[in-house]
Amino acid sequence: MLIIGERINSTKEKVKGAIGSRDAGFISGAARSQADAGADYIDVNCAVTLGSELQDMDWVLSVIQNEIPDANICIDSPSYLAIEAALKAYHSKGSLMINSISGDEARIRSILPLAIKYNTKLIALTMDEKGMPQTGNDRFEAARKIYERVKKEGFDVGNLYFDPLIRPIATEPDQAVEFLRSLPLIKGLAGAKTVCGLSNVSYGLPNRRLINASFLTMAIHAGLDAAILDPLDKYIVSSLRTSGALLGTDEYCGKYIGAYREGKLI
Amino acid sequence: MLIIGERINSTKEKVKGAIGSRDAGFISGAARSQADAGADYIDVNCAVTLGSELQDMDWVLSVIQNEIPDANICIDSPSYLAIEAALKAYHSKGSLMINSISGDEARIRSILPLAIKYNTKLIALTMDEKGMPQTGNDRFEAARKIYERVKKEGFDVGNLYFDPLIRPIATEPDQAVEFLRSLPLIKGLAGAKTVCGLSNVSYGLPNRRLINASFLTMAIHAGLDAAILDPLDKYIVSSLRTSGALLGTDEYCGKYIGAYREGKLI
Repeated sequence: MLIIGERINSTKEKVKGAIGSRDAGFISGAARSQADAGADYIDVNCAVTLGSELQDMDWVLSVIQNEIPDANICIDSPSYLAIEAALKAYHSKGSLMINSISGDEARIRSILPLAIKYNTKLIALTMDEKGMPQTGNDRFEAARKIYERVKKEGFDVGNLYFDPLIRPIATEPDQAVEFLRSLPLIKGLAGAKTVCGLSNVSYGLPNRRLINASFLTMAIHAGLDAAILDPLDKYIVSSLRTSGALLGTDEYCGKYIGAYREGKLI
Repeated sequence: MLIIGERINSTKEKVKGAIGSRDAGFISGAARSQADAGADYIDVNCAVTLGSELQDMDWVLSVIQNEIPDANICIDSPSYLAIEAALKAYHSKGSLMINSISGDEARIRSILPLAIKYNTKLIALTMDEKGMPQTGNDRFEAARKIYERVKKEGFDVGNLYFDPLIRPIATEPDQAVEFLRSLPLIKGLAGAKTVCGLSNVSYGLPNRRLINASFLTMAIHAGLDAAILDPLDKYIVSSLRTSGALLGTDEYCGKYIGAYREGKLI
């Protein structure tokens, strides 16, 4: 299970403020705490700071690399220019991931060459110009087209992570089921992996962390390979550690027992 | 999801004591609280009170029926005689379930006629004289043989609940995976349903309720139809309510929101 830490995201007010005021301690602390909690990649999103995303991305990356010289970074931006700037600003020994392309041809044309040039992992949303997928099969069909498209360009499909796009169950009760159904279908594409963010699933409901954690447990059972999440959230840690113990990926339940002893479980 | 409340079980010291001292308030309270918490059936196990099981079963059933005249009862005993006595002692308007037969021929011959005569639901453990199943396919094969056997005798297979027997992951790390694999296989037998007790899975690990609840979440996702559990356990309630919301069986997430408002979630 690949963990992408989501805490450095400018849609959160505190993060936006810290980026705006160049509070290096806040950013380096958020990177360090997530890495210590087991994040394999640190997601960096500066997209809310309109007009200054390129400079902000550059500054945040320098702060993180100063704190953790071999940090793996997931560059999260709707802007091709911000992604390119981030790739150039990254000089560490770690690995890179780009979040994200979709089936949108313009986005593939601008971002895929960068992913190939810089040898990054790449998240692909299972949607295209026509809009959001409804069923599990819609998600698979969108993934299949992207898979063929990027494979033809020479991209290593072993570095491809499909995000089947979870939507709120409060307003669309079938969407968690359709998402979960799509996971084994997409993983049928040789080499392809799956990833998701969690929090959309619980939008509009109380006690959202609990819904997010149960959804994560089901998704891991269904074969999810990676997740964008808060590795410091006790509900999430409980889901990750119990899932590892139950599915036999945590040898002798060692990580589960360790998390229990360190008080990290609910 | 059919809930079988597990609290009236004589392997628990308090329950054994209450049965021994004929503490009707304790037993009726345990039945009432489980029914109020959503138990569809009340499991009754008096098997630990050696030598007096028949009289104990008779007394416990009279107490429960006095408290809840239409209670559905799950009669849980290794003894054919205790099951027969319980079936005779039950005079309520509710339904009955017998826990359990297995592939053991002597047990089928003694209990199946009772299940047919009294028109009960019937739990069948997916094992036979040769011992416990190891893989998901072992569990399916044991279930298939029992299915054919009881169908031939005229038992309504729609009343058949297979328990694929979970074992501790602390000592056998592949057993949760093999159990989960067996569920869709067994449900492929037309009409057959699945059931399980949870707590064996976490034997030997700390914070067992958390492991049990995550296992329940995965099992529900894999198609589990019924579970023997404590309906007052917050971890379990959280698993049941989030699973219903996520899998679209809880309309408008009404039960989830209700449980949240009543403080029943972790």
